[in-house]
This record gives sequence, structure tokens and C-alpha cells, in this order.
Amino acid sequence: MPYELYYWDGLQGRGEFIRLALEEAGAAYIDITRESGPGRGTSAMMRMLKDAGDLHTPFAPPFLKDGELLVSHVANILFYLGPKLGLAPEDEGLRYAANGLQLTITDFVCEVHDTHHPIATELYYEDQKEAAKARSISFIDHRIPKYLGYFERTLSNNPAGDKHSVGNRLSYVDLSLFQVIEGLRYAFPRATQLFARQYPLLVALHDRVQERPNIARYLASSRRIPFNESGIFRHYPELDRDAV
Amino acid sequence: MPYELYYWDGLQGRGEFIRLALEEAGAAYIDITRESGPGRGTSAMMRMLKDAGDLHTPFAPPFLKDGELLVSHVANILFYLGPKLGLAPEDEGLRYAANGLQLTITDFVCEVHDTHHPIATELYYEDQKEAAKARSISFIDHRIPKYLGYFERTLSNNPAGDKHSVGNRLSYVDLSLFQVIEGLRYAFPRATQLFARQYPLLVALHDRVQERPNIARYLASSRRIPFNESGIFRHYPELDRDAV
Repeated sequence: MPYELYYWDGLQGRGEFIRLALEEAGAAYIDITRESGPGRGTSAMMRMLKDAGDLHTPFAPPFLKDGELLVSHVANILFYLGPKLGLAPEDEGLRYAANGLQLTITDFVCEVHDTHHPIATELYYEDQKEAAKARSISFIDHRIPKYLGYFERTLSNNPAGDKHSVGNRLSYVDLSLFQVIEGLRYAFPRATQLFARQYPLLVALHDRVQERPNIARYLASSRRIPFNESGIFRHYPELDRDAV
Repeated sequence: MPYELYYWDGLQGRGEFIRLALEEAGAAYIDITRESGPGRGTSAMMRMLKDAGDLHTPFAPPFLKDGELLVSHVANILFYLGPKLGLAPEDEGLRYAANGLQLTITDFVCEVHDTHHPIATELYYEDQKEAAKARSISFIDHRIPKYLGYFERTLSNNPAGDKHSVGNRLSYVDLSLFQVIEGLRYAFPRATQLFARQYPLLVALHDRVQERPNIARYLASSRRIPFNESGIFRHYPELDRDAV
């Protein structure tokens, strides 16, 4: 039975971290809101968000249905899927390390979102633009270096080698780091200009992920929604600036 | 060997969600930064944050050391500890439901933090007070009802009964919800005034947790750091207002 992924139609958003893992593994899945028919489409997702019946109703998308199990939140879904897709470390202790890294990515993604929505999720960007500019300055000057510096060190300190963030083979964390670099480059082309020099291991990881056959095929397909200004990573030139 | 909890000294913060689980279970643990001696104190934590050696260096506190395993991030630590402390559902599927709920609490706690720091973590509150006021209005009018309404429905829809958020016995999620109610009441006494009427199941859960012998003893002890304006839940009267 294919996995059922529930996420907002028309944007990569948080759902993309799940899509990349499913695509890399060549797993069968249905991107529910992007299809039509019974049990498909955005209306099907909204019904589940209102009441998932015997399953635990999730707070928000993305969530994944695997038979009778419903798992919500990116890190939780990847923790669940990782071993099934061969994208988690074999060692159980390292799986907690992977989850810790993924939750660090979660925190960072939340900060990316708040660059354009620092005051209120329910207000338009245009109504919080001044605060967004102030937050973006802090984000570019302080938060990108803090987080990406950490992930760069994680690669460099990995006892199993600097090609992977955890363990000695590709994991969902590596795929998520690809997406982070990709998204930051889309949203902040100026701030990310020197990434290859500042974060060489991360950028090398990004490039290797991009060239993996299943990922390359996916990125070239219509299943990969282009970045846009409905997602997490939005390109508003007025929020971008050169890195210090 | 006792668990080693690493978290900032002098505040409840995110560490408190871990402390409550350890205390309820009567588990032996060392609150590293609150003790002195070799391998104790804030300096010991800072060394680990710089380089945890063979272990995966965490991004930020809290993190937990259990022998040779180092686990970071509240939800990850609780996912790891839950079964060991008897504070997770027996059923494996429900453990993912518990983790999803805990991650929803994580998101909410991040939004609580951002009421007083909407622009930049590295700036003082006083330097972002106007944005904080705007964000707090949105938080009180929209985000508290959205999140607490969700948790109230989670209790009411739990097939195993409305006394617990997941499964038929106390879990770390219930303990965390106690802390959320407690913290909101401290930070926003006006906005939370009608909680008992608005969220009766949540408040009843809060009250039951508070009366559990181990929790009551802990809350009365010096190990429970009082709420203060260094933590997540801060009482700034100018950010508080009556709920709509």
C-alpha cells in the first residue's frame, strides 16, 4: 500500500523534506492534495485535519498515513520512515543523533519562515514588512552563520567521514540539508553568494545529493514544485543583503 | 548510572519539560549546571557544546547524556526517555502520536518565546518591545486559541478517555501540557483568566498533574526554579491583555 502524504498543494514547504526522502528511496506514495478523486485533493486533507477518526488528528500538515498509522511533523515522519526507506543510520544510538540534527533543521526552518512573518502568521507579509526587514538582518548576520557553521562542523566531525552528517551512508538528514541550501539560495541569493567558500562540506554534500539519480530525476519532474512566495523559502529582494 | 541533564542554570526554559518527566518517574539524574565539581557546572556544558568528542555535538541545550549516548532536543529526549521512565504509551504507533503532540508543543513553545523576541534572539527585549507587543496581540488572539483548542480536542477525542492526551495512562505529553498551562498563567495572567472555562479538560489535566505526589514534592523543592524573565515564559505586563 503506498504511503499517503498530506501537505498543502502548490508549495514545497515543509512537505518537501518528506518528498525528498520518498523520492530518493523510490518509495510508492500518493501526494494526496495534488491528485483528484475520492479521498484525494485538498478537501480530503481538510477532513483529516478536522477529525481523523480513530487516528490522532494532527495539528497541521505535513502528515503521513501508512495504513492505520498517522504520523505528523517532519522530524517525526522522517524518524518513522528513515529505517523503512534505508535512509537512517543502522545504529539505534545514531538514530537519535539523526533526529537531533533533523530537529535542529526544524528550528532553522521555523526561523526562515519568520524572516517574512515575524509578527503574525495570519497577517500578510506586506503588513509586517518593516519587522521582516529587521528580522532578516539578524537572520543573515547571526542565524545563518550559527546554524550552517554548526552543520559544517557536524560534517567535519563525523567519525564516519565528512561525506555524511551522521553515520557512513546517506540519511534523510543529508537530503534535508540539500533542501536547506537550495532554499536559502533561492530566497537569499546575495546572502548565500559565498556559501561554497564559507561552507565547503555542506555545499559539496548539496551537490552530491543533487546528482543522485533518483533525486536528479525528481528535480527535473513536474512533481518538484518550483520555489515560490507561498512556501517557507521566499525571495523578497528587500530582505536580502550581502553576508558580512 | 544517573542521567545527566545539561541545560542553562537559573531558568526553567526548555529543560523543564525534561525535569518534569525525570521527577515524576523518580529517576536519578544530575542537573549538571546546577552542581559544582569536576564535570559539573556551566563550564562543563559549554565544553560539550564546543566539542562532545566521539558523541554528536548538540546545537543547543537541553541535551541528555545516558552513558555513551547523547540526545538533544526536548522532543527527542522525551521520545528516548519516555519508555524507560514508563511515561510513553505501550503501543508503538501511539508513541509516534505522542511524539507528534510533543512536537506541536515544541512549536507552541517557540511561539511563546517569540512573543518577547520577535526580531532577534541576540537583541534585548527592550530593543524589540514594539514588535513584541504586536506579536503578543496575535499570540493571544489567534495562537493560544488555535493551539490550546487543539490540545483540548485531543483530550476530548482520545479513544482511551479524556484524562490523558494519548493512551490510557500518564505520559510525558501530559506533563508538558501541565507546564504549558503553568507557564502561560505566569506570563499572561490576564489572557489566561478564563482558561478553566475555555479549556476545562486541559485545566483538569493540569490540576491532576500538579497533585501527583512526585510532582507536588518537586514543585515545592528548591529543584524547581521559579519562573523568571530569563526563561521562555516571561511576565511582561505590557504584552498581556484580556482574551477576546
